[in-house]
Amino acid sequence: MSDKFPAAQLRRFMTDAFVAVGLPKADAGRVATLMARADESGGDGHGVFRLPQYIRRIKAGAVNLKPNIRIERESVATALVDGDNGMGHLVMSFATETAIAKAKTAGVAWVGVRMSNHAGPASLYASMPIEHGLIGLYMAVGNANHLPPWGGIDMLLSTNPIAIGVPAAEEQAVVLDMATTVAAYGKVKTKAQRGEMMPEGWMMDREGKPLLDPKRSEDGFLLPIGGYKGYGLSLLFGLLAGTLNGAAMGKEVIDFNNDDSSVTNTGHCIVVVNPACFGDPAEFRRNVDTVVRDLRASKRLPGVERIWLPGEQSGIKRTERARDGVPVPPALQATLAKVAADLGIAPLSA
Amino acid sequence: MSDKFPAAQLRRFMTDAFVAVGLPKADAGRVATLMARADESGGDGHGVFRLPQYIRRIKAGAVNLKPNIRIERESVATALVDGDNGMGHLVMSFATETAIAKAKTAGVAWVGVRMSNHAGPASLYASMPIEHGLIGLYMAVGNANHLPPWGGIDMLLSTNPIAIGVPAAEEQAVVLDMATTVAAYGKVKTKAQRGEMMPEGWMMDREGKPLLDPKRSEDGFLLPIGGYKGYGLSLLFGLLAGTLNGAAMGKEVIDFNNDDSSVTNTGHCIVVVNPACFGDPAEFRRNVDTVVRDLRASKRLPGVERIWLPGEQSGIKRTERARDGVPVPPALQATLAKVAADLGIAPLSA
Repeated sequence: MSDKFPAAQLRRFMTDAFVAVGLPKADAGRVATLMARADESGGDGHGVFRLPQYIRRIKAGAVNLKPNIRIERESVATALVDGDNGMGHLVMSFATETAIAKAKTAGVAWVGVRMSNHAGPASLYASMPIEHGLIGLYMAVGNANHLPPWGGIDMLLSTNPIAIGVPAAEEQAVVLDMATTVAAYGKVKTKAQRGEMMPEGWMMDREGKPLLDPKRSEDGFLLPIGGYKGYGLSLLFGLLAGTLNGAAMGKEVIDFNNDDSSVTNTGHCIVVVNPACFGDPAEFRRNVDTVVRDLRASKRLPGVERIWLPGEQSGIKRTERARDGVPVPPALQATLAKVAADLGIAPLSA
Repeated sequence: MSDKFPAAQLRRFMTDAFVAVGLPKADAGRVATLMARADESGGDGHGVFRLPQYIRRIKAGAVNLKPNIRIERESVATALVDGDNGMGHLVMSFATETAIAKAKTAGVAWVGVRMSNHAGPASLYASMPIEHGLIGLYMAVGNANHLPPWGGIDMLLSTNPIAIGVPAAEEQAVVLDMATTVAAYGKVKTKAQRGEMMPEGWMMDREGKPLLDPKRSEDGFLLPIGGYKGYGLSLLFGLLAGTLNGAAMGKEVIDFNNDDSSVTNTGHCIVVVNPACFGDPAEFRRNVDTVVRDLRASKRLPGVERIWLPGEQSGIKRTERARDGVPVPPALQATLAKVAADLGIAPLSA
């Protein structure tokens, strides 16, 4: 059984941890807030779960604690942000704010990012423009290569995700957040921890045979969605979020799960669109409501209880977890207790 | 056996056909050129194959032959193009040229399109910016709903495609062009014509069981890539290419395969990015080459002869078909002969 912890307590704990390893207090609070937001939204692989790894990487000197995050180049509707190897959440917050400001005047903004780090779930950044009535589109190069090109066995590509957030009127915003592989690598690890087999279609071995035992995950690789199509999406998102910005892509990508000390030069890109440039923004949001409601009310397959919209389940989790707290599995609690002891900070408490 | 016809002959034939039904000569030539480009690149469902349908729709009054294609709204980096119900190829050419011009100065341009029509393969428009050293990204609402939301059976979504084109240096440009369903509906029709069964995963019936007989395609629907992920992509691309622009989406989409006379109000969007805003553009193109070569040279699964890059097979087809001509199956030749007789134009000749 997982115990549940209030998000405020997770924020407090993570802030203390980051301050203890040298992150300035305001920056520590900002990263902790975004990580806790991932936890509240059900992004369990992207919140406090990542804290021990982030702390290890900071202690190993892989991350710059006092970065000069800056616009290196810009035009009226674009910017290239150099993250100076700062925490990814800080770099991406800066980039997204830059894109929002530019899109308000130029109608659209495309901001590329280099020299960043793992920044948590893609939906965080695609959602930020929604509060301003804007549309967000985010792509990133993942921080470990688990995907070969279609027909290949050399893992030269990552799960390169895309997230798109679109504001609605009375309905919750539509927020898609997906990796270009059938399963994320975190799900494979979870299956292994639980001693369960994986369904066919998640992984393949080097002979091209289905790989079902997650304990053998080193013997194979993840499969892309739609076969060669997912390979194409991963590659193109990687070229746009990585190569275009002078960030790591392909062979250059550091496996940050097995390497605590190398600089990752992580690349992202965030695109923000102002609906007011394409018509009456209030009418647009009402039309999004109509599409959402038509889909939700449509006929279902036998046995299907509900048709979900992208982001809707995260919204329900936010409500539940704001009320009941965020579940933290016992193994992770133990790891966090060790982090607290090592850093001399107050432990996570309910 | 398909006979082969030079692309110039296909262009001549299609131009004559469009002129015969009232399209101004320059417009007829432009549409025919883009359709023949699809044929040359292997997009067999999007070139001369579509001519009889386009002619039927024009004769039924569904398309405006003298449209006032115009920018309805614009900002420094955006435009909303009203196609005035003109031929989709003309509308999208105008929109793409608009986006290219804006991206050259603003760094990025996002051009939305309403009141358009079917415009052929997505790759046509994502590729146009490449000739200018720019990146193209295209999304569209498909012209027939074949996809229900995940868990549903009402076909409220289309195969809404995405295409992304990225220039390289010495290598061919990387051009991804994909529908968000596992198979396009045209492939189902081809299987039916050939009397072949479909592989599992292409379609599902209303009970949720695999549908393998393409002759029973009316009893089911296409499946999205990656399950709920492809559903999400189709929905979000539809919101961006359709709803944002005041174009048809969801219930409003006209099935143009079964309806020759209704105005489709087709929506598209084209985004153009200028690599020079993110670094040295020549270096970027060389880095794209490096990624392409690393992928191509990587280790392959047993039995796999070659690792392909997105767009590479189309490039080979362009070379082959420029030399040998475009194959046209006998059934289509017969249909085109009938079109020629009906319109009183010279038949297609080799």
